[in-house]
Amino acid sequence: MEFKVKVAILGGDGFCGWPASLYLSDKGHDVIIIDNLSRRAIDEELGADSLTPITDIQTRISAWQEVSGETIGFENIDVAQDYDGLLNFINTERPDAIVHFAEQRAAPYSMKNSRNKRYTVDNNINATHNLLAAIVESGQDIHVAHLGTMGVYGYGTAGMKIPEGYLDIQVNLPEGGHVDQSILYPSNPGSIYHMTKVLDQHLFAYYAKNDELRITDLHQGIIWGTHTEQTIKDERLINRFDYDGDYGTVLNRFLIQAGVGYPMTVHGTGGQTRAFIHIRDMVRCIELALENPPAKGDRVKIINQMTETHRVRDLAELIAEISDAEVAYVPNPRKESAENDLHVHNETFLKLGLKPTTLSEGLLQEVEEVARKYSDRVDRSKIPAQSLWTSAQQAGVPEQEAVEQEAVAADAESGLSESA
Amino acid sequence: MEFKVKVAILGGDGFCGWPASLYLSDKGHDVIIIDNLSRRAIDEELGADSLTPITDIQTRISAWQEVSGETIGFENIDVAQDYDGLLNFINTERPDAIVHFAEQRAAPYSMKNSRNKRYTVDNNINATHNLLAAIVESGQDIHVAHLGTMGVYGYGTAGMKIPEGYLDIQVNLPEGGHVDQSILYPSNPGSIYHMTKVLDQHLFAYYAKNDELRITDLHQGIIWGTHTEQTIKDERLINRFDYDGDYGTVLNRFLIQAGVGYPMTVHGTGGQTRAFIHIRDMVRCIELALENPPAKGDRVKIINQMTETHRVRDLAELIAEISDAEVAYVPNPRKESAENDLHVHNETFLKLGLKPTTLSEGLLQEVEEVARKYSDRVDRSKIPAQSLWTSAQQAGVPEQEAVEQEAVAADAESGLSESA
Ligand SMILES: NC(=O)c1ccc[n+]([C@@H]2O[C@H](COP(=O)([O-])OP(=O)(O)OC[C@H]3O[C@@H](n4cnc5c(N)ncnc54)[C@H](O)[C@@H]3O)[C@@H](O)[C@H]2O)c1
Ligand SMILES: NC(=O)c1ccc[n+]([C@@H]2O[C@H](COP(=O)([O-])OP(=O)(O)OC[C@H]3O[C@@H](n4cnc5c(N)ncnc54)[C@H](O)[C@@H]3O)[C@@H](O)[C@H]2O)c1
Repeated sequence: MEFKVKVAILGGDGFCGWPASLYLSDKGHDVIIIDNLSRRAIDEELGADSLTPITDIQTRISAWQEVSGETIGFENIDVAQDYDGLLNFINTERPDAIVHFAEQRAAPYSMKNSRNKRYTVDNNINATHNLLAAIVESGQDIHVAHLGTMGVYGYGTAGMKIPEGYLDIQVNLPEGGHVDQSILYPSNPGSIYHMTKVLDQHLFAYYAKNDELRITDLHQGIIWGTHTEQTIKDERLINRFDYDGDYGTVLNRFLIQAGVGYPMTVHGTGGQTRAFIHIRDMVRCIELALENPPAKGDRVKIINQMTETHRVRDLAELIAEISDAEVAYVPNPRKESAENDLHVHNETFLKLGLKPTTLSEGLLQEVEEVARKYSDRVDRSKIPAQSLWTSAQQAGVPEQEAVEQEAVAADAESGLSESA
Repeated sequence: MEFKVKVAILGGDGFCGWPASLYLSDKGHDVIIIDNLSRRAIDEELGADSLTPITDIQTRISAWQEVSGETIGFENIDVAQDYDGLLNFINTERPDAIVHFAEQRAAPYSMKNSRNKRYTVDNNINATHNLLAAIVESGQDIHVAHLGTMGVYGYGTAGMKIPEGYLDIQVNLPEGGHVDQSILYPSNPGSIYHMTKVLDQHLFAYYAKNDELRITDLHQGIIWGTHTEQTIKDERLINRFDYDGDYGTVLNRFLIQAGVGYPMTVHGTGGQTRAFIHIRDMVRCIELALENPPAKGDRVKIINQMTETHRVRDLAELIAEISDAEVAYVPNPRKESAENDLHVHNETFLKLGLKPTTLSEGLLQEVEEVARKYSDRVDRSKIPAQSLWTSAQQAGVPEQEAVEQEAVAADAESGLSESA
C-alpha cells in the first residue's frame, strides 16, 4: 500500500517550505504551494538577501519540473488577508492535507517596532485562524500540520524533561487529595513572534475540540543546514540561507563569521542550550507527520521536532575546529541565566523511523559548500555581532544597543527563552 | 487624599461601558469614551434593537452634561483597525488608566458563520494588541483594566473552587519529588468569542512580563440588570438591554419571555450553574480595580468579577414567582453534563469593600421597570427559545437546529462551558 497525498504547502516559498515541497513532490505526493512572497518583500525592506542565490518561484518550479518531471502548483494567496481566495482554493483543490509554514517567523524582526509587532500578530493569527475557519466552512476532513516552535515551552524546570506538548499535573483539592490532569504545557514566550505560536496553540486546541479538526503541531527546534537531496540537484533549486540580524539563526551567523574570517561572537559563557534539527530531518518529519495524522476527535497531536541540543559555545567551538575560525566571548546583555540545561522528549519521530543527521557530521558540508562557497556574496554590513558591533560603533550606535540586537538575534529561533 | 484619574473607556458606548463611564464621571474622574459604534451597526445587521430606547452617543453625552454638569469626551476610533488614531489619542490625552471593553462579546454571534468567527478573532485580538503596543510605544505608564470572562476557566474540577486566575500545581519530577508552580488557569473556552479572551490572557501575560505593563484582567460573570444610579437619572441616559438570540443573555431572555407572557424555556433539567453580577456592582468593581492597580513588574492581576452563582432553573423559578410566568423544560441539545456545580473564589473585590446586589433583591425592579415597562417595544420574532422554536418550525427550520441556536444563546455569556 502506498501513501500518497494531495498536499498544500502554505509558505512553500520559504526556507522550510521550499525544501519540504520538493521532498514531498519527490516522494510522489501531489504538491501545491501557496505563498504571498512576503518573505522576499521583507528582504527588500531590510536591504538583506539570502547568502545563496535563490531564484524566483516560477524559475524554481520550472527547474524542478525539468529535473524531476514532477509538477508543483503555485498560487499567490495571502492566507491572512484573502480568506475567500483560500476557501476557494480548498474547495477547488480538495487537498488531503495542508502544511502551514506561512507565518512571520523572526523573533528580532517581530520586536523591532510596533509596526512589526502588529504585523506579526495580525499576520500569524489571521493566517492560522483563516485556515481553520476555511476548513470548517469547506466541510472537508483535511489534516493540518503546523510548524510551531520549541520556544513556546516556558517553565523549563530544573531536571524536568520537556514533554511533547502536554504536561501532567496534580491539582490539590481543598478538602485534601488531588486530581490528575493533562494540560497544554504552560507557555512563557520570549518574543512577540513566539507569543503568536502560543496563541496558535489555543486556536488549534479550540478547533480540535469544537470542530474535530485533525491537527498536528510540530514544536520545532532551530533548523540548520541549507541543502537537501532535492535542492542540491540544480543550482536553480537552491534553498535560502539567512544570516542577517533578523532572520539569521545563531548557527548560520557563526558559519558566516567563520566563512569571512571574523571571530564568532558568543555571549557571556555561551552556556545557553538550544534545540536543533537538520533541514533534511525536518522534511522527513513533515512526511512522517502526514503519514500519522491524529484521528477525528483527538486532541491536537503535538510532536517535538528536534534531534539534538547544544550549548551555544559548543557550537562555536565545533565550527572553530573545522574552519580555523576564532571564538570571541562578549558580555551577555540579556537577563537570562548564564547556563541552562535543556532536556526534551523527542521519541515520537524517532519511533516513527527518523534517523537524525548530527551536527558533527553535517557541519563541515555547511562550512565548505555554503559559507565558503558563497562568501563573496556576503554583505558584511548585515553580519551582526562583532562586525555589526564594530560598524555600529563607527556609525555611532551605542555599543550596548548593538550587543542587544545581536543577543535578540541569537534567539531568532531559540528553544527555551527563560526558565521560571 | 482623593483618588481621581483621567480614564479612557474603550467601548464606552456599550452595555457595560456606558454605565461605567457615567459612574466614573459621577465620582469625579475625567472620562473619555472611545468607541467605533460597531455594536450599533451589528444591531442594524441583525435587525435587532435594544429593548430600552437608547439614544445616540452625542445625545447621551450632552444629556449627562445637562444632568450632572460633567463633561465626558468622545472619540470615534476603531481600536482594532486605527492604530495611529489610538496612539495619537494616548499621546495627546495621556490617560492614567484605560478600561478596555471594546470587543465583540456575543458567543452565538461569534459562532454563526466564518465571517463572524473571523471578525471576532480579528477585532478582539487586534484591539487588545493595538492597545498594548500603543502603550509601549507611548512610553507612558498606563494601567489597563480589561474585561475578560468567567468562560475562560475550563477544567472545573469536582469540588475545586475556581481561583482568581492562577492555579497552583505540582509537577512531578522524573527522579521523584515535585516542584510547585503557579500557572494561568488552564483554559477550555466554549466558543470563538470565549477563545478570544483566552488569547487576550496570553497577550497580557506577555506584555506584563516583557514590557512591565500594569494590567488587571477582570474575569466577569454574566451581567444582569439594566439601570444604574446614573443611567436612571434621565431617560436619555438609559442603558441598552439586549434580548435577541445573539446578544441577549439567559436572564434577559427569561425576563422578556415573562414580560410578554411566553413560557421561559429551560434546557434539560436547567441544572447548569452560571456566575452573575449586577451591573451596579460591575461599575463599582471597575472603580475598585482602578484604585488598586498592580505594581510595575507584577504579573497580570486577575480578579473574578462575580457575586453569585445560580442554576438556570432556579433563575427561571425566581422570575416565575415574581411575575406569574411559566417555566417550560425542553430537551438540552448540548453535550454538557445536565448538572454542574460552580464554586468561585471572589474574595478580592469583597475585601476591597464591594457590597453585592443580590438577584433576589434586584430582580423585581427588572421585571417591573424594564421587561414590563418596555414590553410594547419587544420584537417577538427576536425572542429565541420557545417562540423562535415555533416560528422556526413554521419557517421550516428543523426543530433540533432551532433548539441548538437557543442553547448557544443561553451561553452568550456563560460561566464554565464544560467541565473536563
Ligand atoms: N527556520 C527555523 O529555524 C524555524 C524553527 C522553528 C519553527 N519554524 C517555523 O517554521 C515555519 C517556516 O519557517 P521558515 O524558516 O521557512 O520561514 P520563512 O520566512 O523562510 O518562510 C515562511 C513563508 O511563508 C510565507 N508567508 C508568510 N505569511 C504569509 C501569508 N500571510 N500568506 C501566504 N504566505 C505567507 C512567506 O512569504 C515565506 O515564504 C514558520 O512558521 C516558523 O515559525 C522555523
Ligand atoms: N455583558 C456581559 O454579560 C459580559 C460578561 C462578561 C464579560 N463581558 C465583557 O465586557 C465587555 C463589554 O461587554 P458589553 O456587554 O458592554 O458589550 P457591548 O457590545 O455592549 O459593548 C462593547 C462596545 O465596544 C465597542 N467596540 C467593539 N469593537 C470595537 C473596536 N474595534 N473599536 C472601538 N470600539 C469597539 C462596541 O461598539 C460597543 O459599544 C466585553 O469585552 C465583554 O466580553 C461582558
